[in-house]
Amino acid sequence: MLDLIRSLVIENTTKIVLLSLDGLGGLPRSETGRSELETARLPNLSALAAASACGLLRHVAPGITPGSGPGHLGLFGYDPLGFQVGRGVLEALGIEFDLRGGDVAARGNFCTVDGAGLITDRRAGRIATDVNVRLTERLRSIRLPGVELMVEPVKEHRFVLVLRGAGLSGRLSETDPQALGKAPLPVRALEPGAARAAELVNTFIAEAARRLADAAPANMVLLRGFDQLPELPRFPEVYGMRAAAIAAYPMYRGLAKLVGMDVLKTGGTFADEIATLREHWQGYDFFFVHYKDTDKAGEDGDFDAKVAALERFDSFIPSIRDLGADVLVVSGDHSTPSVLAAHGWQPVPALVWSRYCGADPVSAFTERACAAGTLGVLPAHHLMPVVMANALRLTKFGA
Amino acid sequence: MLDLIRSLVIENTTKIVLLSLDGLGGLPRSETGRSELETARLPNLSALAAASACGLLRHVAPGITPGSGPGHLGLFGYDPLGFQVGRGVLEALGIEFDLRGGDVAARGNFCTVDGAGLITDRRAGRIATDVNVRLTERLRSIRLPGVELMVEPVKEHRFVLVLRGAGLSGRLSETDPQALGKAPLPVRALEPGAARAAELVNTFIAEAARRLADAAPANMVLLRGFDQLPELPRFPEVYGMRAAAIAAYPMYRGLAKLVGMDVLKTGGTFADEIATLREHWQGYDFFFVHYKDTDKAGEDGDFDAKVAALERFDSFIPSIRDLGADVLVVSGDHSTPSVLAAHGWQPVPALVWSRYCGADPVSAFTERACAAGTLGVLPAHHLMPVVMANALRLTKFGA
Repeated sequence: MLDLIRSLVIENTTKIVLLSLDGLGGLPRSETGRSELETARLPNLSALAAASACGLLRHVAPGITPGSGPGHLGLFGYDPLGFQVGRGVLEALGIEFDLRGGDVAARGNFCTVDGAGLITDRRAGRIATDVNVRLTERLRSIRLPGVELMVEPVKEHRFVLVLRGAGLSGRLSETDPQALGKAPLPVRALEPGAARAAELVNTFIAEAARRLADAAPANMVLLRGFDQLPELPRFPEVYGMRAAAIAAYPMYRGLAKLVGMDVLKTGGTFADEIATLREHWQGYDFFFVHYKDTDKAGEDGDFDAKVAALERFDSFIPSIRDLGADVLVVSGDHSTPSVLAAHGWQPVPALVWSRYCGADPVSAFTERACAAGTLGVLPAHHLMPVVMANALRLTKFGA
Repeated sequence: MLDLIRSLVIENTTKIVLLSLDGLGGLPRSETGRSELETARLPNLSALAAASACGLLRHVAPGITPGSGPGHLGLFGYDPLGFQVGRGVLEALGIEFDLRGGDVAARGNFCTVDGAGLITDRRAGRIATDVNVRLTERLRSIRLPGVELMVEPVKEHRFVLVLRGAGLSGRLSETDPQALGKAPLPVRALEPGAARAAELVNTFIAEAARRLADAAPANMVLLRGFDQLPELPRFPEVYGMRAAAIAAYPMYRGLAKLVGMDVLKTGGTFADEIATLREHWQGYDFFFVHYKDTDKAGEDGDFDAKVAALERFDSFIPSIRDLGADVLVVSGDHSTPSVLAAHGWQPVPALVWSRYCGADPVSAFTERACAAGTLGVLPAHHLMPVVMANALRLTKFGA
């Protein structure tokens, strides 16, 4: 499908803005029977929906809850089932680690083992981040033959392990037995070419156990999600557009970088992001702008905070419309219903506005209303071709 | 999917009429916020929609604008991405050239080159068709060893080139560099078996250049879209129906012939087509009836003419219903919104009427209303199975 799109691309001067509200979709709360989107006062989004083609996006498949990686790949037009990105790589992107082609990345956890080496806590009592920082410092001093070793703290008990060197493979089994009372598993090569990497990682683990022996509860490590940077078709080449990403959070900058977008320097608030958008308006054809607050409130299970986050977002719509984009898209990477306090599988509202988006019966940007839209219920990776078409950037298929 | 359908077919005596309004779908004009379908007075289509299952068709994929070839293949139940037909073949079908299996067809343009052989006009100033006729006459006299050469004028600067002979391949590169100031490219074989065809075409081009040397602005040719007739499953065999096509325009007769329908002789108006339908009513199970006026008005960017074309079509509905079809289908091959003055990617309204089509909230045959129909937003090639089912011509799948 990406090859088809690539073959139909016409370059022109139209401008596209994709606004991604993280965790956009929600669920009604039982007291009112209304979802967050149905509760919030969203005059600007409602007006935009009334003038747009609306629908619902499914990012992976019906019933499948997307992580942030697959969710955004879907929005960018990549089928998340066809382009899988390992957890180690996503974790590295999440701290904006400068992962390079060939590097092997893994997600690490500090854990607690007893005198017999059996796991008693898979998260080491969720140690404070500053303890994590001191312990990863110890692990960094480990030396492995022929490769460069990097250990980066994340939050609490989490860290990222990266091996850099020629000829490594990330096809390695996990060490986390996912159960208490068992010993961590040794890493096994899942393909013949991964034997050396497996040996190196097992050496690292043995050495880490020695250096952490006195550091209980964080006296051992678990490693999973080994992977290398995938070779993804580059967004600017597939779509023939200069593409920029504006995101205050590192994970989303990392995902945009993964597909070859330029990541613009911006501040920590959405107002900063919109200022960055305005500032770089002439320099790009396509802007991916990320809004985090909706997901954060949903993950916290805070219905009212999510409603407030939606209303804050709504207030930015007029200034975004004033920029004069030819195509304006509003959607998200997955649902985060407050009543779940977690990512959900529910399809996510989407709207596409342009001069050519067509008539649509939808006049509210809610889960329920968007179900009647002319976009239908759409795999998320089919949205980008619709967006491109609305920008008159695709020629017809066949004579 | 076609194999599945074939395996489920039951033959019976029901009759199906598929009315295809070319370029049916449209877009609202800004003055009124209403599309062509929403502006037209369509009492008969509205009444039919109220009694039908309605929906929207996508012929290729979301955002992809279909050409007439893929659009009709979709309506006939063939996935247009799985069955691709080259431009040369479509161009030959468009003039009802009797293309045979093994023939290699290409779309030709007369163009202008300067003294150095560089292209200065890719369309030779759109020469008049009678000039084209005289020049193709010159090209026909070219002799190529071991193959028959046919050159057929189309409109203005366009012609069709056909090579007929044993063992030819159509896997050839194009000669049009798609830019001014460059020389036409030589044809290259895209597979080893195409070497001879490449040589023959290059000989033709050299000879054509000589014979056109004094014919500026049409002093050179460009060739593209080389292809051979594809092997398509035959519609009458897949669906177990005697199938007839009624179309005043050659392109649509050609497309119907491509899938093995009988093409009925008819006059130049839609009234003639309906008379032909009535006349052959007993002889077939399935009728594809094509209405061109909607597309023509849309391509001209003439909103009012498209509204009028829809209203004219509407007036034929009672006489078509009087024939007593068991299943009546109304849809189109693609959108041609007047505001685009070109084919569009927008999904196309569709209705399926039968005794068994089911209840549906839709009571107007418009883009907006059909979005809420029980057919949903459907890939066009999934419509034929629904149509067959409504004719009670498919048995159940599995016990």
